[in-house]
Amino acid sequence: GEQIFVGQYLVERLVQLGVTKMFGVPGDFNLGFLDFVEDHPKIDWVGNCNELNAAYAADGYARVKETSLGVVLTTFGVGELSAINGIAGAFSEHVPVLHIVGVPSTSQQKNKPMLHHTLGDGRFDAYYRAAEQVTISAASLESKDTAAAQIDRILTDCLVMARPVYLMLPTDLAYERIPSYRLKTPINSNPPDNDPDVEQFALDEIVKLVQEADEDVIILADACAIRHGVKQEIAELVKRTGFPVYAAPMGKTAVDESYERYGGIYVGSISHPDIKEKVESAKLILSIGALKSDFNTGNFTYHIPASRTIELHSDHIRVQFAMFPGIGMKRLLPKLTTRLQPFHEGAKQISVPPFVFPVPQEDNDIISQSWLWPRMGQFFRPKDIIVAETGTSSFGVLEVPFPRGAVFVSQILWGSIGWTVGSTLGAALAGVDLGYKRTILFIGDGSLQLTVQELSVMMRSGVKPIIFVLNNKGYTIERYLHGMERKYNDISNWKWTQLLDTLGGQEGKNCLSYLVRNKSELSTLLDDPTFAAADKIQLVEMLMDPRDAPNALKRQAELSGKTNRYVAELPSGVGEAV
Amino acid sequence: GEQIFVGQYLVERLVQLGVTKMFGVPGDFNLGFLDFVEDHPKIDWVGNCNELNAAYAADGYARVKETSLGVVLTTFGVGELSAINGIAGAFSEHVPVLHIVGVPSTSQQKNKPMLHHTLGDGRFDAYYRAAEQVTISAASLESKDTAAAQIDRILTDCLVMARPVYLMLPTDLAYERIPSYRLKTPINSNPPDNDPDVEQFALDEIVKLVQEADEDVIILADACAIRHGVKQEIAELVKRTGFPVYAAPMGKTAVDESYERYGGIYVGSISHPDIKEKVESAKLILSIGALKSDFNTGNFTYHIPASRTIELHSDHIRVQFAMFPGIGMKRLLPKLTTRLQPFHEGAKQISVPPFVFPVPQEDNDIISQSWLWPRMGQFFRPKDIIVAETGTSSFGVLEVPFPRGAVFVSQILWGSIGWTVGSTLGAALAGVDLGYKRTILFIGDGSLQLTVQELSVMMRSGVKPIIFVLNNKGYTIERYLHGMERKYNDISNWKWTQLLDTLGGQEGKNCLSYLVRNKSELSTLLDDPTFAAADKIQLVEMLMDPRDAPNALKRQAELSGKTNRYVAELPSGVGEAV
Ligand SMILES: Cc1ncc(C[n+]2csc(CCOP(=O)(O)OP(=O)(O)O)c2C)c(N)n1
Ligand SMILES: Cc1ncc(C[n+]2csc(CCOP(=O)(O)OP(=O)(O)O)c2C)c(N)n1
Ligand SMILES: [Mg+2]
Ligand SMILES: [Mg+2]
Repeated sequence: GEQIFVGQYLVERLVQLGVTKMFGVPGDFNLGFLDFVEDHPKIDWVGNCNELNAAYAADGYARVKETSLGVVLTTFGVGELSAINGIAGAFSEHVPVLHIVGVPSTSQQKNKPMLHHTLGDGRFDAYYRAAEQVTISAASLESKDTAAAQIDRILTDCLVMARPVYLMLPTDLAYERIPSYRLKTPINSNPPDNDPDVEQFALDEIVKLVQEADEDVIILADACAIRHGVKQEIAELVKRTGFPVYAAPMGKTAVDESYERYGGIYVGSISHPDIKEKVESAKLILSIGALKSDFNTGNFTYHIPASRTIELHSDHIRVQFAMFPGIGMKRLLPKLTTRLQPFHEGAKQISVPPFVFPVPQEDNDIISQSWLWPRMGQFFRPKDIIVAETGTSSFGVLEVPFPRGAVFVSQILWGSIGWTVGSTLGAALAGVDLGYKRTILFIGDGSLQLTVQELSVMMRSGVKPIIFVLNNKGYTIERYLHGMERKYNDISNWKWTQLLDTLGGQEGKNCLSYLVRNKSELSTLLDDPTFAAADKIQLVEMLMDPRDAPNALKRQAELSGKTNRYVAELPSGVGEAV
Repeated sequence: GEQIFVGQYLVERLVQLGVTKMFGVPGDFNLGFLDFVEDHPKIDWVGNCNELNAAYAADGYARVKETSLGVVLTTFGVGELSAINGIAGAFSEHVPVLHIVGVPSTSQQKNKPMLHHTLGDGRFDAYYRAAEQVTISAASLESKDTAAAQIDRILTDCLVMARPVYLMLPTDLAYERIPSYRLKTPINSNPPDNDPDVEQFALDEIVKLVQEADEDVIILADACAIRHGVKQEIAELVKRTGFPVYAAPMGKTAVDESYERYGGIYVGSISHPDIKEKVESAKLILSIGALKSDFNTGNFTYHIPASRTIELHSDHIRVQFAMFPGIGMKRLLPKLTTRLQPFHEGAKQISVPPFVFPVPQEDNDIISQSWLWPRMGQFFRPKDIIVAETGTSSFGVLEVPFPRGAVFVSQILWGSIGWTVGSTLGAALAGVDLGYKRTILFIGDGSLQLTVQELSVMMRSGVKPIIFVLNNKGYTIERYLHGMERKYNDISNWKWTQLLDTLGGQEGKNCLSYLVRNKSELSTLLDDPTFAAADKIQLVEMLMDPRDAPNALKRQAELSGKTNRYVAELPSGVGEAV
């Protein structure tokens, strides 16, 4: 039959799965494989400045390109370990990313010479062991006979479990010939079937609870609803049942925020009081894709007992206290919609306070956190991709309603600062494929310093995000957690508006940079249609107060202060976990 | 007795060991500990732009500050994993680095709430497991009763084994009070004693072999001679015996390169032919601290049989085929010097070709690799710290003789590009402590893009390196390995001379940037005494040919091409390890 090189097989599989970009950095152990990538007409190599940024980009790409995956290619040891934090973040936040590592040949791995990029002690499996800690599945290709099956296995795991996987590709194996017939069978990325009896039983239970709750039910969408691909199913559910729907921070944009029955963001105790009241007083909560991390739950302050909760997850559901392992939400949800549709009349009666965030009138011209975010809300448009970095940005943007079809990209559980720079690159490239028009990034000055070089790759690859840099002279979020006046929370002030030009742009030609010092300047810029059209990459430096933070962050910081023990004076017991 | 907080105990230990700088990035799990660091009068916090750069800086600091160690502080998960490649490099290259990680409190580690920076699945030990792969010793502090002993244990391991160690410091434990009396006993960083009988036996064997070799002996110094602190012992040995001495690339500057009996760099087949001849024809080779990696040995082309070799290592020696485990070179060397001193007369007869690298006359004004490096040799001064990035730089600078007391900093085994930027920062800061005047960095345009932000920290911390950027439009070293014309070896061209000003400097005031397009411009600059005085941080962009490489690199690439299989056409068997 027809033959194909193992390296080509891998590239073909990725193309079949809709991957159009591969991120990474070349290194001598992956150069041979890179030839296949560069030569393939349907996939582009995006050479990143460094590997961590590349991993971040693959993650951002996967988040926006919801049915596909992100791919990052690095070289043995030095490259892969540089990327590992990005991979761990994808694990934590359920993002399907394939990490391909070009490694020494199979015979070198057996003979273990002291090659460059080794630890010098003959351990060729050390990086694999490290990778295992932060991936859901891993393969070290060892023979051409099993290579294709191994590749297929990890791709399936990656997509079905929506988590990163790791692949060691030896230099020699990339150029071994294998039969190509397997390519005719597509990778199965569907979740496994639910046991029909168990599913039926669980559905009956849920319907009974809804009845007992007198239809006083709300739906709460969270991270895994997005990551495990049930946005469409939820849209159907809420439309056909009419139950009010809210979202956790990590579930923002799982449901269209312009939808009339959508009530906004629920974050336990730090929620807007109206939202908190509505959610916590409902007799029954149908939670979809929950990921109950500290920052996603107002530091574990959900006041909702399990007896009033139904939780749907990708691979199990929980009805009050009863677990149903193996029952996944993707297949359950359409059936649930059918069963709950009859409650529509009652559901409609439940009022949903409108999710709005009016721009406050303030008697000064400082760009305050309280003014900035609702003002940005007016700037957003349908189908914007909105990326917010950990810091005042991720807290501030949460309560701003997003227009129809807008996508929220943030890393609330993993929270690795600098992530959004790579992630914006990946998200914007995926956005181009899917017809999103603008990508808008909010990032703190501190965070941008970690990964700034990737601005250069944005320019090279032709994406045109709008980048708002919050210049507040350092790590404001940390000042709120500890050390308000400490020097370690200060950073160097850069000439932010020179960055694009320095890193490969031509200011005024293919990039534009702005400094805005006050509300008026920022408003004028936002109202400028040329700016808003985002036809060039643009960076806006916003001068802000180092001691200003969004309310949600202030409240979160108070709660976190109680769980982290920073000073000796705290009475013992305060350092306990919730 | 007197009490002290665990966090303070740790800081005091570091100060005792001569640590004056701590590198890293703040994060909420390390902020409490950071207060102790910021408040201590004898240690400075160097806040880095990101964690990988911080780890690189700690590594560079430790290399120059030979009897001390480098310290990097990061936060749980996101911070520590970002740094892990830097730690792995320190492992590979035998550099004592302590990685302190601020982690959740002991009770949180027991209860395992879904905190930010966790993997979301309750595994609080995953990062520890990853760290174990690349450190020689690790401790997760769990109780105040054992904290001090644990700290002492890993510090001892770090120094004695000259390799990185890992320490998890929970937020609550940093603020637990413990007795301070242990601080009165200094950390023992001496290598363990040698068994006197075995040592005596081995010395007799060595002396016998030297006699049998008719005193036709050469000494070969390598990486571990520097890292395990026997530079002084070697200087004594070579002075008092008069045997010729050479160095492997990683051993460059283990022996003063201005020493009259020093013959230059031996790299197997890719050595200068005279050197190769001298070393390989000697009847006996006394190898000190060898680390026989591919790039350190001309791709394993030492033509020296074990029967003619004596190898001294930090924890064992090998005499021909006989191993002597537990016999370390540090204690053996002074005795060996005494025993070999009588051979001085004979040793003196052996000629040593002078180690020189004259500047070639070339009939063009292009900054060629063949001209650049010897020309730089004229610029170097005694006690310069000379840092060379992996790429054409590390190959090019090797054969340049360094003046008295100059120190060579490079990463020939691990070879993680971008490393020199952080490493230069750390090396320069250590240099200030030790009275080195200048730090000079050679770095490729490709490599600088990985870690460029650390230029900003150089300016903030007041060091004044001279940074030569080889602008050859991409990854030239890789072009020689594979893909000479491939796009993946191209990079974006930055406005290199704007970098310092953009990243926090004031061009003309505290920083100076230059573009040199040809030999004449570069020579003029090098001859300018103000430039050479290095009173400000300076960056020199040098325009060079993308297809030009030092000869040593060309020869290495030929050899590597034979071991890496990049294309299918190669006959099978060629991909074998040496
Ligand atoms: C990789 C990584 N390092 C360190 C941290 C700890 N950290 C969390 S937020 C933050 C400061 C962010 O500052 P900035 O981006 O300026 O945001 P601001 O709150 O000032 O808007 C730091 C250092 C982290 N989360 N990730
Ligand atoms: C972290 C890391 N990523 C990738 C590589 C693979 N690599 C080795 S050298 C090199 C290119 C270096 O180019 P440059 O710095 O411009 O040096 P030149 O040879 O052009 O002087 C690359 C990408 C590596 N060694 N380390
Ligand atoms: Mg900030
Ligand atoms: Mg280059």
